[in-house]
Amino acid sequence: MPYTAPIADMRFALEACADFWSLRPRYQDLDEDTLIAILEGAGSLAEETLAPLNRSGDRAGVSLKDGNVTAAPGFQEAYNAFKQGGWQGLAADPAYGGQGLPRALALAVMETVHSANMSFGLLPMLTLGAIEAIEQHGAADQKLLYLEKLISGEWSGTMNLTEPQAGSDLGVLTTKAVPQADGSYAITGQKIFITWGEHDLADNIIHLVLARIESAPAGSKGISLFIVPKFRDEDGSRNAVRCIGLEEKMGIHASPTCTMAYDGATGWLIGAENRGLAAMFTMMNAARLNVGMEGVSVAEAAYQKALSYAKERRQGGALIIDHPDVRRMLMTMKAKIQAGRAICYATAVAADSGNKRVEDLLTPIAKAWGTDVGVEVTSLGVQIHGGMGFVEEGGAAQFYRDARIAPIYEGTNGIQAIDLYGRKLLGDRGEAMGHFIDEAHKHGGVFAKPSDALKEATHYMLTASRDDALAGATAYLALAGEVIGGLLLARGVHRAHDPERKKLFDFYAATVLARAPSRLAEVKVGAGALKLGEFA
Amino acid sequence: MPYTAPIADMRFALEACADFWSLRPRYQDLDEDTLIAILEGAGSLAEETLAPLNRSGDRAGVSLKDGNVTAAPGFQEAYNAFKQGGWQGLAADPAYGGQGLPRALALAVMETVHSANMSFGLLPMLTLGAIEAIEQHGAADQKLLYLEKLISGEWSGTMNLTEPQAGSDLGVLTTKAVPQADGSYAITGQKIFITWGEHDLADNIIHLVLARIESAPAGSKGISLFIVPKFRDEDGSRNAVRCIGLEEKMGIHASPTCTMAYDGATGWLIGAENRGLAAMFTMMNAARLNVGMEGVSVAEAAYQKALSYAKERRQGGALIIDHPDVRRMLMTMKAKIQAGRAICYATAVAADSGNKRVEDLLTPIAKAWGTDVGVEVTSLGVQIHGGMGFVEEGGAAQFYRDARIAPIYEGTNGIQAIDLYGRKLLGDRGEAMGHFIDEAHKHGGVFAKPSDALKEATHYMLTASRDDALAGATAYLALAGEVIGGLLLARGVHRAHDPERKKLFDFYAATVLARAPSRLAEVKVGAGALKLGEFA
Repeated sequence: MPYTAPIADMRFALEACADFWSLRPRYQDLDEDTLIAILEGAGSLAEETLAPLNRSGDRAGVSLKDGNVTAAPGFQEAYNAFKQGGWQGLAADPAYGGQGLPRALALAVMETVHSANMSFGLLPMLTLGAIEAIEQHGAADQKLLYLEKLISGEWSGTMNLTEPQAGSDLGVLTTKAVPQADGSYAITGQKIFITWGEHDLADNIIHLVLARIESAPAGSKGISLFIVPKFRDEDGSRNAVRCIGLEEKMGIHASPTCTMAYDGATGWLIGAENRGLAAMFTMMNAARLNVGMEGVSVAEAAYQKALSYAKERRQGGALIIDHPDVRRMLMTMKAKIQAGRAICYATAVAADSGNKRVEDLLTPIAKAWGTDVGVEVTSLGVQIHGGMGFVEEGGAAQFYRDARIAPIYEGTNGIQAIDLYGRKLLGDRGEAMGHFIDEAHKHGGVFAKPSDALKEATHYMLTASRDDALAGATAYLALAGEVIGGLLLARGVHRAHDPERKKLFDFYAATVLARAPSRLAEVKVGAGALKLGEFA
Repeated sequence: MPYTAPIADMRFALEACADFWSLRPRYQDLDEDTLIAILEGAGSLAEETLAPLNRSGDRAGVSLKDGNVTAAPGFQEAYNAFKQGGWQGLAADPAYGGQGLPRALALAVMETVHSANMSFGLLPMLTLGAIEAIEQHGAADQKLLYLEKLISGEWSGTMNLTEPQAGSDLGVLTTKAVPQADGSYAITGQKIFITWGEHDLADNIIHLVLARIESAPAGSKGISLFIVPKFRDEDGSRNAVRCIGLEEKMGIHASPTCTMAYDGATGWLIGAENRGLAAMFTMMNAARLNVGMEGVSVAEAAYQKALSYAKERRQGGALIIDHPDVRRMLMTMKAKIQAGRAICYATAVAADSGNKRVEDLLTPIAKAWGTDVGVEVTSLGVQIHGGMGFVEEGGAAQFYRDARIAPIYEGTNGIQAIDLYGRKLLGDRGEAMGHFIDEAHKHGGVFAKPSDALKEATHYMLTASRDDALAGATAYLALAGEVIGGLLLARGVHRAHDPERKKLFDFYAATVLARAPSRLAEVKVGAGALKLGEFA
């Protein structure tokens, strides 16, 4: 089996670390048997249907001809299985065919999908974002028109933000929307880096597109969000949106990354005029958490592959897993995966609980820390494979290539760090973070120095000049992720009384938590330290 | 210009950090003008001839047909230019056409080659290993027969160690050598991962092959080294050695990685019977230092690309280099490159000085630390490019893919850590390391904690059980690299009185040296901490 859903680890992270059952009052029908059945069902789909297509999809890639994108062989059957299993709508509104289950559970399901096949996982992930945006910002008729088909997986969704001239700065986008007599808008412009922007797996593709209505104010306050279906709602005719190019990427080859041309395409405003960014943030927040999960997921896949290689591969007389350094790498992988998983799940539990400040605080940490774990762990996976790790046939290389996108898209990890500082920490003057610091402080022991470091770092971020704070924001996020990840593991160990998990926590404390004082030094480096002559 | 040789940084590392001019008594003809002329000449070749082939070579790759490997377009002309410039023999014996210059200078030249085109650089790097092995272990007639052609670059060299069943464990290799009446041996067996094992750029390929003479003792004490030319010396006829496969790799696509089949090929013993490993270590040591340099070199190329992107790319109104986090990434890249470069150059200066214990101590550090820098810095380069970093067209992705091999070949970085501990530290009971610790201790200030940490870690490594020491060996190497790299930068700053370099050193101290105490905690984690049930 190339991948086995790590149900025990997932349950530990979900139930013991992330306190999943605190949701019971909100989800009274949910019991342990249902939880297990769902995780195992998702695991089977991932193991039997999605994982076998991972390497073949990487090799086959996708192709574009006359504006039509063809997915890799086997992806249609896999998508049909995903759709028929009802997996897309796990956490969606039952009024439109969803199952109304916690997002934390849907996230755990997506973990298995991403682990098995990251390219595939992006398709339901983007659809999920579209569902949430329409659930929260759509008018009643829009919900009626789109939600059921999206939730069933018959249709898929996309997010169209980036334009060629504007990467992360949405304020300068130029795609325009011209009001039409029938209440629709004619959308014209070009969008790049559109994941699954065009493909042949779903019957329709619902594009959510940021554009500027004629005469709207300049900057980010003049941006609106539009629904642009590939096939028009009125008559099923082909809308004036086309894929005009595919990116040649380092990884996720089976996921088409499209350049989309809108040429007076029929679009429908969703939410209020000029309030598009707020609606887009709904999608982005869900997507950010999912991308963090994706980082952890590809790390899990890399770990499993490396572990099984280390237990099979002999160097002369001994198995390579008997080398302490190989064990050290495996322990590092496992410990960081488990901490990253706990952070992602805890973020989703906070969302399900309506604990918005914790959700908001943890989202950029889940995204950036989880995806950094993805890159680091998949690199260790390559290393354990030795020469076979660099050779594509070995399989470890693909995880490494695939994982590298995750720190970039849905807002680079640098942007997550700015968000953690500017929106989250400054937003509540460090209050939500303060609860984690207090909890760590109460632990004492291995948390004594880390909690002090995080406390001092938080104070620094709140009081330093904006430039100095921004110079330390990435290190601050890393420190916060390391401490909170450790806290969640400690919660789990406390609940579960499992000596194996205790051993993993102790290793995490000795190698990750121990870094806290030097992270604090990095946080405080100051903007003045970052001025070399050659930067001018 | 896609790459510009960083002559000022190279001179700083060579002259101010690595004390190049301490070699003057040994190389009396060498003066500053010659040094500059050589670096600039190499720089021009790298910039104008090699760098323009880097991306095209990545895309074209190499091909195998009927046992013949064809290099990527343009590589023949580039190799001719390299050959005609006399670059291969810079440090080689003048008796055979070499220029007898310091190896440190030859290493600096190779830096520019590796930066410009890592795939290309592997060819002269392997030839260099063959030259050194024959210079040191060859008989007089072998030197006459091979050295001149290798030093001129007319012929190239290879190292044939690995076999399919034995990665890093050479003791179990099975390629056999049967004595023939004419004093030669018939070599039969298969070797894998042979870099530039077959190609069309040189007139002959001199394979240095580890094999076992019939009736030799088992294990590593029964291994001998043989010279197996692609075309026989006697009559120029084709020898019975063939490339039977090319690896499909994540990177260095323009460098053929060959599976070589020896089918009773004519080989000549070099050095004493059953003493092949000692001779091979000569090649390996030179190659290890060169691979460390390669890591730093590809990092330099990635840095230059990221810096120029950050100075051109606008996000809305501002250049992305004006973001503190982008500056932080660039500073990290530059600081680690400069420290890694200093370590590599200092290793070569130690070799040129005949300071064997320092050379031996620094070689595994140069290899592992330099190549870890390569992976980390090229990853930051991808990150600075954002979405363009993941797209192959952007160019940053190739550096990231190419760099990933360096921590693996010529002995994985885990093996370097074992070497640092088992052969180097235990070999002199920490004496050579002690001199660096004393120097750091005398600095005080930002070196106070790092020197204490390195001292305690060294004591631990010398007194812990073998398994406990091995569990901490990788962290120990990282700590040693961080402290020694910092020391060399401090030496340079002390000599050069350059405020820009002082700023870079201060950043290094705040972000890298500050990590020393937590490295010590990692060193002391102990083998007992690395035992999970699932590892059994």
